[in-house]
Amino acid sequence: MKTTHNHRFVTGALSFVLLSSPLTAAAQQPSQAPIRGFAADAVTQRAELENRLRAVPDTGRLREYQRVMSEVPHHAGSPGSKAVAEWALAKFKEFGLDAQIERFDALLPYPASRQLELLGPEKYLAKLKEPAIAEDKDSGDPGQLPTFNAYSADGDVTADLVYVNYGIPDDYDQLAKLGIDVKGKIVIARYGQSWRGIKVKVAAEHGAVGTIIYSDPKEDGYYVGDVYPRGALRNENGVQRGSVMDMPLYPGDPQTPGWGSTPGARRLERSQATTLMKIPVLPISYGDALPLLRNLGGPVVPNENWKGALPITYHIGPGPAKVHLGVKFDWQVRPVYDVIARITGATYPDEWVIHGNHHDAWVAGAADPISGAIALLETARSFGELLKSGWRPQRTMMFALWDSEEFGLIGSTEWMETHQDELATKAVTYLNSDGNNRGTLSAAGSHTLETFVREVARDTQDPKTGKNALEAIVVKDLEKAKTADDSAKAKAKRFAIGALGSGSDYSSFIDHGTIASLNVAHGGEVETGSYHSIYDSYDFFRRFNDTTYRYGAAQSHAMSVAEARLLDAPVLPWSFTDAANTYTQYTNELDTLARQKLGDHQVDLFVVRVALDTLSAAGKMFDQALDRATGMGSQWLAAQAKALQAVNRDIYLSERELGDPNGLPRRPWYRHTIYAPGFYTGYGVKTMPGIREALEQKNREEAQTQAKVVADAIMRMAKRAQRAAEELDRLTKQGKTT
Amino acid sequence: MKTTHNHRFVTGALSFVLLSSPLTAAAQQPSQAPIRGFAADAVTQRAELENRLRAVPDTGRLREYQRVMSEVPHHAGSPGSKAVAEWALAKFKEFGLDAQIERFDALLPYPASRQLELLGPEKYLAKLKEPAIAEDKDSGDPGQLPTFNAYSADGDVTADLVYVNYGIPDDYDQLAKLGIDVKGKIVIARYGQSWRGIKVKVAAEHGAVGTIIYSDPKEDGYYVGDVYPRGALRNENGVQRGSVMDMPLYPGDPQTPGWGSTPGARRLERSQATTLMKIPVLPISYGDALPLLRNLGGPVVPNENWKGALPITYHIGPGPAKVHLGVKFDWQVRPVYDVIARITGATYPDEWVIHGNHHDAWVAGAADPISGAIALLETARSFGELLKSGWRPQRTMMFALWDSEEFGLIGSTEWMETHQDELATKAVTYLNSDGNNRGTLSAAGSHTLETFVREVARDTQDPKTGKNALEAIVVKDLEKAKTADDSAKAKAKRFAIGALGSGSDYSSFIDHGTIASLNVAHGGEVETGSYHSIYDSYDFFRRFNDTTYRYGAAQSHAMSVAEARLLDAPVLPWSFTDAANTYTQYTNELDTLARQKLGDHQVDLFVVRVALDTLSAAGKMFDQALDRATGMGSQWLAAQAKALQAVNRDIYLSERELGDPNGLPRRPWYRHTIYAPGFYTGYGVKTMPGIREALEQKNREEAQTQAKVVADAIMRMAKRAQRAAEELDRLTKQGKTT
Repeated sequence: MKTTHNHRFVTGALSFVLLSSPLTAAAQQPSQAPIRGFAADAVTQRAELENRLRAVPDTGRLREYQRVMSEVPHHAGSPGSKAVAEWALAKFKEFGLDAQIERFDALLPYPASRQLELLGPEKYLAKLKEPAIAEDKDSGDPGQLPTFNAYSADGDVTADLVYVNYGIPDDYDQLAKLGIDVKGKIVIARYGQSWRGIKVKVAAEHGAVGTIIYSDPKEDGYYVGDVYPRGALRNENGVQRGSVMDMPLYPGDPQTPGWGSTPGARRLERSQATTLMKIPVLPISYGDALPLLRNLGGPVVPNENWKGALPITYHIGPGPAKVHLGVKFDWQVRPVYDVIARITGATYPDEWVIHGNHHDAWVAGAADPISGAIALLETARSFGELLKSGWRPQRTMMFALWDSEEFGLIGSTEWMETHQDELATKAVTYLNSDGNNRGTLSAAGSHTLETFVREVARDTQDPKTGKNALEAIVVKDLEKAKTADDSAKAKAKRFAIGALGSGSDYSSFIDHGTIASLNVAHGGEVETGSYHSIYDSYDFFRRFNDTTYRYGAAQSHAMSVAEARLLDAPVLPWSFTDAANTYTQYTNELDTLARQKLGDHQVDLFVVRVALDTLSAAGKMFDQALDRATGMGSQWLAAQAKALQAVNRDIYLSERELGDPNGLPRRPWYRHTIYAPGFYTGYGVKTMPGIREALEQKNREEAQTQAKVVADAIMRMAKRAQRAAEELDRLTKQGKTT
Repeated sequence: MKTTHNHRFVTGALSFVLLSSPLTAAAQQPSQAPIRGFAADAVTQRAELENRLRAVPDTGRLREYQRVMSEVPHHAGSPGSKAVAEWALAKFKEFGLDAQIERFDALLPYPASRQLELLGPEKYLAKLKEPAIAEDKDSGDPGQLPTFNAYSADGDVTADLVYVNYGIPDDYDQLAKLGIDVKGKIVIARYGQSWRGIKVKVAAEHGAVGTIIYSDPKEDGYYVGDVYPRGALRNENGVQRGSVMDMPLYPGDPQTPGWGSTPGARRLERSQATTLMKIPVLPISYGDALPLLRNLGGPVVPNENWKGALPITYHIGPGPAKVHLGVKFDWQVRPVYDVIARITGATYPDEWVIHGNHHDAWVAGAADPISGAIALLETARSFGELLKSGWRPQRTMMFALWDSEEFGLIGSTEWMETHQDELATKAVTYLNSDGNNRGTLSAAGSHTLETFVREVARDTQDPKTGKNALEAIVVKDLEKAKTADDSAKAKAKRFAIGALGSGSDYSSFIDHGTIASLNVAHGGEVETGSYHSIYDSYDFFRRFNDTTYRYGAAQSHAMSVAEARLLDAPVLPWSFTDAANTYTQYTNELDTLARQKLGDHQVDLFVVRVALDTLSAAGKMFDQALDRATGMGSQWLAAQAKALQAVNRDIYLSERELGDPNGLPRRPWYRHTIYAPGFYTGYGVKTMPGIREALEQKNREEAQTQAKVVADAIMRMAKRAQRAAEELDRLTKQGKTT
């Protein structure tokens, strides 16, 4: 489900902060630099291990996996999806891992009928069809799901049309200023600026009876670059499918919120499922949108931000364009197949490092998600190779290939909910990947892992520059620099991780389970328009995306390194100092927001500041204790394996403390107090969401209540950090005196 | 020739500076505020006179004049143009003014044949035709000049096409970076960012064999707003005609540079005329441009700044689009008819205030130039009415309706050159107008007149707000203000005048004759796409432009007030302080430019600074002397009329001192040392052009030489100001002692 890089509304994408400290000096691979959580005397041995992991991923295999996995349409619930799951199961086994399929049942509506026509002033029957093209062998495959938005309501409506720009709340504010009401109308919104489900939800809230979403060539077509098959951008027939389930309430099977939809499990009535849209919606191409838009009257759009790149003057309406929209779905519960592989840890079998990537696609899905899934397979094979040589990880490694991510993060959410009690105590980290492409390495997730990620980047090679991934982002910006100032900024750039909203399978792990999580990807170098289209194919990918599969190999290796370190670190490499710094930035933002929304001194974030001071102090204590403990050397650390278990438990369960059992206001499924997708942004993250969204809605009282909730959570994390530090110090002292 | 407000490359357009001083408090009309150059006891009487002038302009007459003058195509050299001149002559006479026609002969090429075809990969024959439309009665008139660029070379070329964006030097720098050479190619450039002639000159300098110029819908079509006839923007068939004569060398008849092209005058051979283009060029519509552009290959354009709003991915080429361009002209010398009307001054008949506006058009020209010409006629009638009541101006007023402005400012330039010796001593000011439209009053010109213009604006009513024209610009910005900061900025806005480049008939007066000049217009509220098209018609104007003719009336009144004051002021209302301040800003800009281009301390502008200090001191002396003199009262001033003649001569001849008889490097016709159109911007002004263009070309030595030229000129102006001040003081002292 992860979007390509030209879809800016996805967060969880990379984010860089400019800091005054210069880059770590260039490190050859393998690095001899310290590795957080390990003793200095372990570095050489770790480097040797990581070199062995690097040697495994093979570009030929990656290509072949992709060819096989994207060969037939494999949307969730289809025979193609089951076949891919079974093929992957066999692969994991072939690599020497324990593996099994876990089945769930979920409500997966397929389109039964779709009709969109312009009744007047001009008559036009929308094609609603992406044609096969000669240059793309899979584009004519039988069994493709037609273009639709999953979890649209059934409906048959005829009404005047209104253009609502991106269809986000700001756009409706602008419409109100112009005196335009969408009540009883069908709205047409362009993709962009928000996750698509928000467009439908907001339209329905404003009384619209139907929604059309189209890809405007401004963001996603000829304005950006040459269109397929001449180039990689979306052509006039290209349609972006996608789910419109109200995931900001909860993701996963709409009929089993909060529990696993194992076969036979209790299910809500469909009418009770709050994440289904209340009005019909269809996604269309810009070829189909043009006749609709050019028949709009009413005022010309108010400013540049409302203009797309179709060859018309954009008007708002309502009408005279009159539109008939009819959609009906086959609302079946269908099987969903997750593939789970495991390497049991030698020392801490009940501490789990999990890496997941979905395997289902809207159609062929060569980029989304197969480009990420194939890298995961090669990582699994890399560990399989180590196993053959006798290596065993200290902790347990689990690989997951999720089904039905596209419909609403279903495979991952149902698995997480099914195993939530066990995960609550055992999950150390959840690592996610999804589409992978040409470009630099980036990561987003829990800020306790920022230093850890930076070390992984330092020790991972960028395929293009041959530099390490920390330096690659500098090189990239230096190339683009036009002034001395740009160059100076580029040189000062530091690899930082962004916050996670939603949009891929990490959601249930971080948002519901409050498990420390990361999303990791390469990308950013190419703009492509194949997203959620039949043209997201093997032929397309090899021509325009990771053409050499070197970025797949780099991704595979980066994940191997990250996972190997998390699996084996005597002390888990968390940094509470990083977390405190980032949370402080969020608090500063909230202070500004509070002043904007409520005037001065109306909301008191002092409780949060106090908690942050405590976390910061505990973070410093922990950093020092960690240094002292790893300073004792590998042998001593190994001897303390049992004693360190309690320390590590405090470390990884610290993220659990950021969860509030009551969840966020009006959406209890979301428990993380620091990160959540926005109620009105969809994928876009809202940090400290309880406070932030209350402020945005000018709800002073709720903001104040939520400040206490956030402060308590941070305070609990600080206590875990402090206890871990104290226990480490106790052990270290003991070690010195004996 | 003046372009509409959406063509930003025109200067002479308004320019505002933000100053800390607040606006003059609201003044009712007529103002009782002091009027520079008059005694305080004259204000009431002046206000009464100006009220009488205000009462005359009549919206019904303005409309009727426009209907008549735009009824048939009246391009220079045509029977229509002669008929308009004769009709205007009769009008001036009817108003009670002395009037006559002065004839000149000029090279006016009409198109004989035009052909543009795309030979491959797609075949397309360009229409090169704006069709008649039912909504516009004049759009099908016989005798229209077809779409063409005047002073294109004859030529017949076939070559691969290259898209060069706006075709300005920066674009060729970008092409060079991409390794693209236009040598032997036909280039296609879009209108905008420079005057059109520059596009052809620069293309030829780079070795192109032909140029196509088209109107992109991004700047001039559906992207901006609804197209004609639905709205006022240019439709897919609309073409912008226009001259490409190399006016930055010299305007006017190409065969008589520097002297008047009176019938029988000496003429250069055509081959000696340096302002004719060396390659063929044709302007086309975006409808005709689309097939050409969509058949380009090569790289995609490098950035957003290169993208237009056609529904394609813009490529640069060269080719595979192969184009055949053939144009041939009928190079005849044709008659040009200026209409000159005069009211001889009672006291100073040899001090001339001149107001000109052209009467020729590319086709019907309802907006360009008739909207300005009709306001001039009503101003002439206003003075005619005063004459009937026995009033006589102190100085001589001359009205001019110029012919053949569109081909290259020909009527005004030839008249100016013919009368240059007389003008050298007699011309007090040249006031210019051209197209006039809905919007606020603005002015550009000699900065010695800035305070004068501000007082005229203070005493002129804005039709929309009912406020005076100084306040109207604040109201306009307050309406658009989104933040408190915007509002504060709007309130601090002060009416300032911009510098004049080229683009209308003031050019020969200010640039060659170095006569203090102003261009005055209302506009800025509407975006229209009728510029130089057959759709610049009476029907268009009444639907989309100054629909009530109230802005025509306001323009007429503003000009009457300005002229009446210049005609009657006992002491001419110059401000050398304003001039010194503005020239100092230019010098500061040049210091920055010098550092950018040549590094620190390479060019010494100290001589200019010294001259500016002298001018500033003289300006202060003059301001004080003027105050003391006008403080003596009207009666005393009237008694000094003879003695003041020498003072006023020093005042208005001060602008003459800014001229350098050698002219600018490589273009001696341009003599003004402070203002000139840019050699590579065309209409766009370059202030202190000798220094500035030398710096832009990194020619240190020339910049240094030119600094001396500028400094000498300013020093001469300062001497005139000082002498005027001393003489005023002498008279005042004498008056006090007698």
